[in-house]
Amino acid sequence: MSAAETAMLIAGERLEGTEGAVRGIDPRSGETIEPAFGGATEADVDRAARAAADAARTFRATAPEARAVFLETIASEIEALGDALIDRAMTETGLPQARLQGERGRTCGQLRLFARVVRDGGWMDVRIDPAQPDRQPLPRPDMRLAKLAIGPVAVFGASNFPLAFSVAGGDTASAFAAGCPVVAKAHSAHPGTSALMGGAIARAVAACGMPAGTFSLLYGADYRVGEWLVAHPAIKAVGFTGSRGGGTALMQIAASRPEPIPVYAEMSSINPVLLFPGAIAARGAAIAAAYVASLAMGAGQFCTNPGLVVLIEGSGDTAFREAVAGGIAATPAATMLTPGIHGAYLKGVEALRARGVAPLAAGGTSANPHDATAAVFETDADALLADPALRDEIFGPAGLVVRCPDVATAARLLEGLEGQLTIALHMEAADHALAADLMPLIVEKAGRILVNGFGTGVEVAPAMVHGGPYPSTSDGRSTSVGTLAIDRFLRPVCYQDMPEGLLPAALRDDNPCRIPRRIDGTLTLPA
Amino acid sequence: MSAAETAMLIAGERLEGTEGAVRGIDPRSGETIEPAFGGATEADVDRAARAAADAARTFRATAPEARAVFLETIASEIEALGDALIDRAMTETGLPQARLQGERGRTCGQLRLFARVVRDGGWMDVRIDPAQPDRQPLPRPDMRLAKLAIGPVAVFGASNFPLAFSVAGGDTASAFAAGCPVVAKAHSAHPGTSALMGGAIARAVAACGMPAGTFSLLYGADYRVGEWLVAHPAIKAVGFTGSRGGGTALMQIAASRPEPIPVYAEMSSINPVLLFPGAIAARGAAIAAAYVASLAMGAGQFCTNPGLVVLIEGSGDTAFREAVAGGIAATPAATMLTPGIHGAYLKGVEALRARGVAPLAAGGTSANPHDATAAVFETDADALLADPALRDEIFGPAGLVVRCPDVATAARLLEGLEGQLTIALHMEAADHALAADLMPLIVEKAGRILVNGFGTGVEVAPAMVHGGPYPSTSDGRSTSVGTLAIDRFLRPVCYQDMPEGLLPAALRDDNPCRIPRRIDGTLTLPA
Repeated sequence: MSAAETAMLIAGERLEGTEGAVRGIDPRSGETIEPAFGGATEADVDRAARAAADAARTFRATAPEARAVFLETIASEIEALGDALIDRAMTETGLPQARLQGERGRTCGQLRLFARVVRDGGWMDVRIDPAQPDRQPLPRPDMRLAKLAIGPVAVFGASNFPLAFSVAGGDTASAFAAGCPVVAKAHSAHPGTSALMGGAIARAVAACGMPAGTFSLLYGADYRVGEWLVAHPAIKAVGFTGSRGGGTALMQIAASRPEPIPVYAEMSSINPVLLFPGAIAARGAAIAAAYVASLAMGAGQFCTNPGLVVLIEGSGDTAFREAVAGGIAATPAATMLTPGIHGAYLKGVEALRARGVAPLAAGGTSANPHDATAAVFETDADALLADPALRDEIFGPAGLVVRCPDVATAARLLEGLEGQLTIALHMEAADHALAADLMPLIVEKAGRILVNGFGTGVEVAPAMVHGGPYPSTSDGRSTSVGTLAIDRFLRPVCYQDMPEGLLPAALRDDNPCRIPRRIDGTLTLPA
Repeated sequence: MSAAETAMLIAGERLEGTEGAVRGIDPRSGETIEPAFGGATEADVDRAARAAADAARTFRATAPEARAVFLETIASEIEALGDALIDRAMTETGLPQARLQGERGRTCGQLRLFARVVRDGGWMDVRIDPAQPDRQPLPRPDMRLAKLAIGPVAVFGASNFPLAFSVAGGDTASAFAAGCPVVAKAHSAHPGTSALMGGAIARAVAACGMPAGTFSLLYGADYRVGEWLVAHPAIKAVGFTGSRGGGTALMQIAASRPEPIPVYAEMSSINPVLLFPGAIAARGAAIAAAYVASLAMGAGQFCTNPGLVVLIEGSGDTAFREAVAGGIAATPAATMLTPGIHGAYLKGVEALRARGVAPLAAGGTSANPHDATAAVFETDADALLADPALRDEIFGPAGLVVRCPDVATAARLLEGLEGQLTIALHMEAADHALAADLMPLIVEKAGRILVNGFGTGVEVAPAMVHGGPYPSTSDGRSTSVGTLAIDRFLRPVCYQDMPEGLLPAALRDDNPCRIPRRIDGTLTLPA
């Protein structure tokens, strides 16, 4: 990468960071990757945040069509990066080429989907209550509501999706769609990939004539850059994907500001999988194979990794457990994203062992010290209920199978769990009555409930919820994937008796944006 | 009131509180009103919250039509209370009969409006993405999203609207509409009014066959009952209307829980009124009269009271100021809601005087020591910018007029203000260009922007926003008045490949609830 490409991007300008430096590490070799990316000072953070605040006033008011084209231009600019992007991401993350190519497709598809969302306009939730000048005892004024951009958003990318959940990922796409400028902090595990993605966004900002402060990209040699950013008065919301420790630290900062702001942190989930007796009896081995594949995919480095299997005992248990053991034994060791993640994985697995949890199966080993060996443990419901530490997430290819004698025990176990991103149910028609009894509880525990599948594989779609009760996310009212993610960065504004010329276009009588509107409480579609 | 009526209501049972006692005070005489209402113990709070959690699982799943009828039944039960309700509220608040009759109408109208909202179903934001079994490289599952009730809500009523913002007010109506049980803490300034309203709700719960824990009503002899309630793990959201101190204390408790929960606190606003030169020149005296009426209405005890007038100087200033002085001088003293509120008002006015702010006018006085004398002060922009304390809300009939030589100064002044519930603009066509320059700033500072009117008078309507950036509310993404208030108590849930029989009715193929749905991203209305 050229020297210019290692500089921060602050409101369209390239600035070399001077507060320490960030370098990627090749997880396959453990070797440092050049070049270095200079870290931001507090003054740099201030400059980026102020520029974003300036930009917010014009960016918020851009026409939906203009913002849609901007999102599509970012996608094209990312595609124009070509193999250089994939190569750099492979080096920094150890992820395979095909996976990264797929993730690039997902990232660009996500940007284009949000372009369609912006054009549709339903996200503005436009409501018009016409005046009633003759109403008694008092006339009713004309009132018009639209949801508008909340203001500058700080985005913290995830290590495990260097494209789709990072600098130009879902948080950034939905913030831009809402009309919010973004100040992104590059993840220190993939600074070069972040630089390339940031460059693509900066070119789109310029090409589309958006205000310069619409986007900035900062590097942070330590945690302080993130703290400065979240504490900055110009920042009005935060998007974060990462660890529970990191997410709760940002929540604390945001809640302690003179003006508290929302934090959307996607943090921690063990994604319980409930296996009902009918399903296990009918196809235990097939479920086991699918479970092992989901658990081990991408070295288990997914927020929706199935960390906990709740096995409601019946006739097929033994076959299921044998098939899991066989599948895990045949699972090769896999390189994890960073030495830090690998270290935490080893610690998590070791902690289970130290607590006396029985191993059910272990996967293949590797000479590479950064490779993770898959592992499945097993225990019973009483042990899990007695030891809350067994419910902690282990990020990586480790799972825990919990035997439950009956559905009532499974219910007690679920009651004791924290909020989850997903809960999966494997069942046959004969199990539906049992599942129906659990549904009122399940719905309180997860953002997505899926049947005869696993949570890995998160569709970017209108009906997706990638969110859930705390601590799976900081704010269970939200999703970070899918088109509803735009709602995180909006706030409603009511205009009362406002002259037509001063209204946002979306609220004008003739509906120039051709969007759905609720007129006097009744939803109407554009002609 | 009978002995039974002074007891707490916990999940349909009457229980006499034993932790201290609450008595109303007649603000016109300062005398204590019998009977006493026993305060809740921590065990009482726990019992109410647990009952609410139990109820949540069935109440959430009630059919929209059943919940709509429940809301309508509450309204009928309130009406059936007859004059006893109005008499008690008059005694406890000192508010006039006509005002309370109007407020009762508003409260019942609000419940019936939410019944219509529940039936409409748009609030569920239903999205259905049908399966694509032949999609390459992987099939797409069937995904269905609905917003569902978040869980039990703690409701803290306001002193200034003993009916419309209290036990059966907007927070309770919108929580019930969403499918959330409510645990209400009665405001200690109107315990008897609260008891009557709580009884009406309890009768509706029973009549409609809702689960008993759907509603509880507690009294608190001190602040601990509220703390216990907000800290209770079964409570999933908080609705509050009151002081900034009270709201921020609840926010702190909610943020410090093992599972943080959202707090919707409506707290503090000075509701700036911008007077443009054209408007002042054309009709300064009329604006002054309307301003004085809005400022003094109900002894100024409204969240939307116009505390700050920004007078952009032009040819009509003198006439405006003289008309204000005349109007205020003719304003009689008025009884405030409680001795505590009256004391805080005196302190606020005294603080302005102590800071050297010049009086513009003072209203009539009264022999009653609890009556408030209206007061308007004036200063210039530089003084306001130099002294942030001048921007603090004084709850009551006190206003501050700030002279600004031009729009640029007004903009600087607005920049320095905190978030507001409302900003009002008084202007003629000739002022529109000036206003247009300010609009990008104004939209960031308030939840409602109104023209040629005052913020007092908050319509209960689909397009209303009674919310705004911090600290006017704790969460500027929300409104506490109007139909969008329901959204505060919802969270999205995605069902993936769920058998039809296990789906909530709203998500079934045949759309039995006849609600709007977004199918594959396209909004469709029910046939």
